[in-house]
Formats: sequence, C-alpha cells, structure tokens
Amino acid sequence: MLQSQLFTKTKREAPKDEESINAQFLIRAGFVDKLMAGVYTYLPLGLRVIKKIENIIREEMNAIGGQEIFMPALQPKENWMATGRWETMDDLYRLKDKSEREFALGATHEEVVTPLAKKFIDSYKDLPMYLYQFQDKFRMELRSKSGILRGREFIMKDLYSFHTDEKDLDKYYKKAMKAYENVFEKSGLGDKTHITFASGGSFSKYSHEFQTLSEAGEDIIHICQKCGQAINKEIFGEVKVCPNCGGKDFEEAKAIEVGNIFKLGTKYSAPFNLKSKNEKGEEKDVVMGCYGIGLGRVMGTIVEVSHDDKGIIWPESVAPFKAHLISLAQSANSKAQAEKLYKTLSAYGRSTEGRQNSGIEVLYDDRIEVSAGEKFADADLLGIPYRLVISDKTKGKIELKKRAESEAKLVDEEELVRILT
Amino acid sequence: MLQSQLFTKTKREAPKDEESINAQFLIRAGFVDKLMAGVYTYLPLGLRVIKKIENIIREEMNAIGGQEIFMPALQPKENWMATGRWETMDDLYRLKDKSEREFALGATHEEVVTPLAKKFIDSYKDLPMYLYQFQDKFRMELRSKSGILRGREFIMKDLYSFHTDEKDLDKYYKKAMKAYENVFEKSGLGDKTHITFASGGSFSKYSHEFQTLSEAGEDIIHICQKCGQAINKEIFGEVKVCPNCGGKDFEEAKAIEVGNIFKLGTKYSAPFNLKSKNEKGEEKDVVMGCYGIGLGRVMGTIVEVSHDDKGIIWPESVAPFKAHLISLAQSANSKAQAEKLYKTLSAYGRSTEGRQNSGIEVLYDDRIEVSAGEKFADADLLGIPYRLVISDKTKGKIELKKRAESEAKLVDEEELVRILT
Repeated sequence: MLQSQLFTKTKREAPKDEESINAQFLIRAGFVDKLMAGVYTYLPLGLRVIKKIENIIREEMNAIGGQEIFMPALQPKENWMATGRWETMDDLYRLKDKSEREFALGATHEEVVTPLAKKFIDSYKDLPMYLYQFQDKFRMELRSKSGILRGREFIMKDLYSFHTDEKDLDKYYKKAMKAYENVFEKSGLGDKTHITFASGGSFSKYSHEFQTLSEAGEDIIHICQKCGQAINKEIFGEVKVCPNCGGKDFEEAKAIEVGNIFKLGTKYSAPFNLKSKNEKGEEKDVVMGCYGIGLGRVMGTIVEVSHDDKGIIWPESVAPFKAHLISLAQSANSKAQAEKLYKTLSAYGRSTEGRQNSGIEVLYDDRIEVSAGEKFADADLLGIPYRLVISDKTKGKIELKKRAESEAKLVDEEELVRILT
Repeated sequence: MLQSQLFTKTKREAPKDEESINAQFLIRAGFVDKLMAGVYTYLPLGLRVIKKIENIIREEMNAIGGQEIFMPALQPKENWMATGRWETMDDLYRLKDKSEREFALGATHEEVVTPLAKKFIDSYKDLPMYLYQFQDKFRMELRSKSGILRGREFIMKDLYSFHTDEKDLDKYYKKAMKAYENVFEKSGLGDKTHITFASGGSFSKYSHEFQTLSEAGEDIIHICQKCGQAINKEIFGEVKVCPNCGGKDFEEAKAIEVGNIFKLGTKYSAPFNLKSKNEKGEEKDVVMGCYGIGLGRVMGTIVEVSHDDKGIIWPESVAPFKAHLISLAQSANSKAQAEKLYKTLSAYGRSTEGRQNSGIEVLYDDRIEVSAGEKFADADLLGIPYRLVISDKTKGKIELKKRAESEAKLVDEEELVRILT
C-alpha cells in the first residue's frame, strides 16, 4: 500500500486523555481512534492487525473442531431471565424498543448459544459439538483507562463446547488449552504468557486464565518457580501450592488476562433444558465449556510488551505489513528502483494463473514532501518488522534493518526476497 | 467438510412463524436460526455464504480505493444530537449506562465516520478519501416479516466518500455505481437487478437504489422499457420520464432494494465542521457520499430469486461449498472411492510448499444411517451447485448433476476435476 494514500497520519504528541502505553502508541501511529472512553474505531492499519490475530485464532479453533457461527448482539430479555443474569449481571447493557419490550446487548453469548444448541442436539450421537464466533461484546465498564485492553465494546472470540459428560469435557478442555497456547505463541506472546489457575465456580475446582506479564496488567499472578504455571490473586490465599506440580516457591507479578477457559458444567444447559439421550434413551444435562479471547486485548497486550521509546515493535505474525519500504530517492534511477521493488515484492509469489496470493505485504512510503527524519520516525512508531530504505546512496542496493534491531545492512534484491520469504 | 460432523440438521417442515421464502428455506436447511423477530444467528453454512458475499464486496470496494476500517456500534448521544438525528430518527435504539449517560446503537455510521474523517482531513491534498466497513447495524423495526431481508440487527457494508467538491463526488459516484453493478453481477443477481432512481434529498436530484425483481419485494419500481433502468414508486409520480434515456414506457414490478448509493453533499460535514483547505488556504465544507449494501439482504434475495420447490439453488460464487459429495456406497471399494475423492478434491491445488489454498470446497455426506432419498432431499434443500454421487452402481465413476439442472451424467475423476476447476 502507498503511504501517501493511507487515510491516517501519525501524531507527534500522545493524546492527553490516554494513560496507557497501548492507546498512546496505537493512536499516535493511527491504528485506532477513540470514539469515547472504552470504545475505539479500528483504522486501516489496526484492522489489518486484528485480522491477522483473527486468522491465527480461527486456524486454531478449526483445528480443534470448532464450527464458526455469528450470533446476534441484540438478545431477548427472556433468555437472560432464564439464567438469572438479567438481574445479577452488573455490567449488562439493557434497552427497550418502542413497544417497551426489553433486550440485552450481548456481554457474552451463553444465553444465545445454549438454546441454539438445544435445537440441534438430541442424543449422544450429536456430541461433542464445538461452536465459536468473532463478535462484538458490550459491557458497561465505568472505568476504562487501559486503552484497548478493557473496552465497553470489544471484539471477542468465544468458543462453546458441548459434551455428554464431564470426562469428555475434560479431554476437550486440555485440547483447548493447547490451542490457546498455540494462539499466544503465534501472536508473539508465548514467552510471557502463563497458564494461570483461577476460581472454577461451582462445577470444577479451577478455571484457567492466560496471563501475560506486563506492568500494564490489572491482575496479580503468582508464578510457580518450578513449572512456570501460575495462580491468580483471588485464589492464591487458599491454594499456596502449585496445583500443577506441587511447587511452593512463587514470584508475584502484574499481568494482563489475554484469554480464559472455563468448565461451565450444567450451569447453562440446566436452565435451558439442554439434554442429550444416552444409548438407553435416558436424558442427561449436556455438559458445557467456554473459551474466550479478546482480540483487541491481545493487540493491546502485544503493544504493551513489545515496544521501545520510539514506538511499537510488531511480531511478524500480526504486523500490518511485513516490510516498510522507505524511498529517500532523489535521482531518477533510485526512484525507479524503489517503484520497481515495491511492485516486485507486492507481486511476489502470484502465479500467472491468477490464483490469489497476497504477495509480500509492503507499506511503501512514497511521500515526497516528508523529510528522511520524519519517515524514519514514522517507521519506528508504526513498528513494521523490516525497514527497507532506498536512496541515491544505496546505489542500487537496499538498506535493510529490522525494527527490533539497530544494525542495518545493504542487500541486493535477490537476498532481500530470500530474507522476506 | 464431513456432513456427519456438521452442527446443523435439515428440517422437513417450514417454521410456522416465518412467512418469507428466504427464512423458510434458510431455516429448514440450517443456514440461519431465528433468535427473535428480525434477529438471526448465522450458522456454519450461512456464515460461509455471508463470507463469500463479504469477499466479493471487499474486492470491489478495494478496487475503487476503499480503505477498510471497523467502527463501533455503541455511539455517544452527542454525535447524534449534532446532526439532529437523536430526535428525528425513529428507529434508533437508545440506551443508558449506570451513570445515566445516553448512547445510540449504530443504525448507520455518518455520526462516527464524519468526526473521524475530521481528525485526518485537513486540506485538498488529503482528498478524495474512501472508508468502508462491515459492521452490524441496529434498527428498531417493529414489523419484521421478511426473514433476513429486513432485520433489527443486520450486517452491512457501508462506504463513505469524502471530496473537495461536487464534481469529484460525481466522478466517484459513477465508479461506485459500476462497483455495485459488479457486486450484484458476481453474486448472481445481475440479471434481475435494476439501477433505480430514487429521491436525492436536498443535495442532489436523485439517489440510486439497486432493486432486484422479486415477488417478495416490499418496493415497487417502474422499469424503463427502453434502457432497463428504473424509477422507484416514491418519485415516479413526479418524474414520469426516464431520467437516464428519456423513455416513457414503463413496467411496474415488485423488487427488493439490495443496495443504495447517495450523494450526501455537506449534510454531515457541516454539523461536524469537516472542512478542507484549497490551494489558497480557503476552507470549504467537505462533500460526502455514502454507499450501502446489506449482506443478509443480498443472501436472502438470492434465495428469493434462485430456488425451486425443493430448496435453494446457490450461484457458484456465493455457495457454501462448490460440490456436495454424496456417498451411497455399500461395498468396500466404492466406500474407499468416496473417501479418496473427498480427499483429492479438498486438497486440489494445494502446493507441497504448504502455501495456503482452500482446495475445492466439498461438503461430504458421509452419514451412514441416512437413506439415499433423504440425502438427495437434503442436497436439493441445501442447494450446493454440483452434486456428486458415488454408489456401488457408479462403478468407479461419479454421477454428476448440477443443482440447477435435472440431467445427471457419469464422469471419471479427471473429467470431474476439469469441470470443477
């Protein structure tokens, strides 16, 4: 994409109404815009990151048998009355239409997915079943000071699993845990993310959170020094011994909850009368699990843990573009070289048969009235993994520098393509 | 995908609370589920269709320079007060949080995109600019009897264009009109969709609707018998002569509005003070256009115009799968043949380098306790373009039948692959 055509421009100053590093950088760099506290627009660069994260998650959810659906945000009050959460869920948005009929705005989707599952699940033959979606969630957060880490409206992946019994849930729960580890590994958060024991509700002893170490975290976790798993603050007082390995030595740290998985048991199947017949024709409540990841929160967490004072440092897997080509060309020759390189990279791997291939994703800083200093500052702020510079001085070669490193080197086109593919 | 694993099952009976053909077929076939009047869940098959339509639209929007963003549904009252629509828009959902602060649920996004554009548009050098999104819209429709044609919550693509002047808007408006024609052409609605003159508001003489002929349509259009363009009912009384070609001979027909494009002029830029400086530094209100397509409505319209008494007939471009492989195999040989064909087609075109390619999309009816009659009935209901049958009788070949045709023929695997690719 041509940077001269990009809708957004970078800002030198951090917005005054944002305290968090993620919001400051993401707004300055033009990834998101704040509509009001806790509510953000994803701008072209930011939406590219969200789509990358979405695809990483989708691949892992499909790999564990998830079937993608899309459930409504607008939900009937009756469903929320059935589970009791119309009265008890504090941060649920409630609204009315002209006929005074009441609705909830989906803060979560158990109240929709459970009666939906009931329409198609009848016997053990229909189980297990796994449904997931990417959909906006709405929660009436009064304090929203963490940028895109905690929103009133936020994009979430929620997966729900349905089982004949607890044993089958346990088996899938472990698979989901592994899939979640893969998601955070692929998103570049693997090193800093700890599986964390949390309260399990009435059904199971523990649920699990995925907590990424960060000073921006609102949570406190206690990391077992033996196995690396952790215990969250709420239950640490009771537990004191690592439920995973028995370790007794812990280190306290701040962390951001980037995902959670939870055994629901029959909490939602019971009120909606979701049962399955066994081989003898006897009916039993279906056993459920739920598994959530906030996409904006993952994106914000990546910024919190991967930046320097100049800007964001995107991991390749979620970066809006792979390479940032900066033209400082003055001579006709080097101008032509930059144009040609942009086209070559963008078209790379596209077969002549017209089959779809995205090529190498390049943001091309073709702006002419902008100084070299400003272009370099923008590149650091935007955080695209590979910076490529072409100027009259590079004499037909390309100056290549990784965003995460300080040393640049001159390469020719062939070598560059080898590095980028 | 294995049909035995699919979440949904078909229903023999049409749902009693649905009058429309689209909802009856889509619910029976398991494409959508009704949560309440005007609010539907997209199930695995239905979401696949929506994603196909989304990709057709995205390609066309990108081709006319659109940059994709994602704006919130939850919107501050102040923005709607600024344009006066907080008071005047009848079907706007309004809600409050705990502190009694009021919000609108996005019925449309001019109130968000205009102040957003103001943050990045300063001079004529920043124009023109085109922003679009796919996002849920919410409208308080009291009557919702048309299935997914008219929802209270519905997925919409909305594009907004920003220009220095009317002339530049006019130029882009024509490009957008062509892009819309492409979208409906590619979605299989081209033949029946008429560009239709509609009221233009205060800024321009006309806006344009894209109206697809259908008995299910809530609109009446008057089609010019000379050029094929049409005039909608609201303005036909005043116009009487085709604004496109001057023709005077019209035919009245029912139609569904699948898209519309509208010159907004300065209606929204003025209240938000969105201006651009010209070369002399003088400020002028930015001129805007807006361009909408409802994805669910396109999907529902396709069902309305492309079905028979047995079920849906999807055009290839939007079908959930390209081929429906039905195994009636009894012998070990033909069972193995079906398994192998499913794998061959699914893997088709995938290179060994592991580059992504979706292969040929096949729904494989591998169910064993289901009769041939039921399988054929399901295939007709689901409406996948190519039906492939393998049984002991096909003797190593495949019986191929198009959903839209009645004749079947025996082909070998090589010929089949040639037809499907």
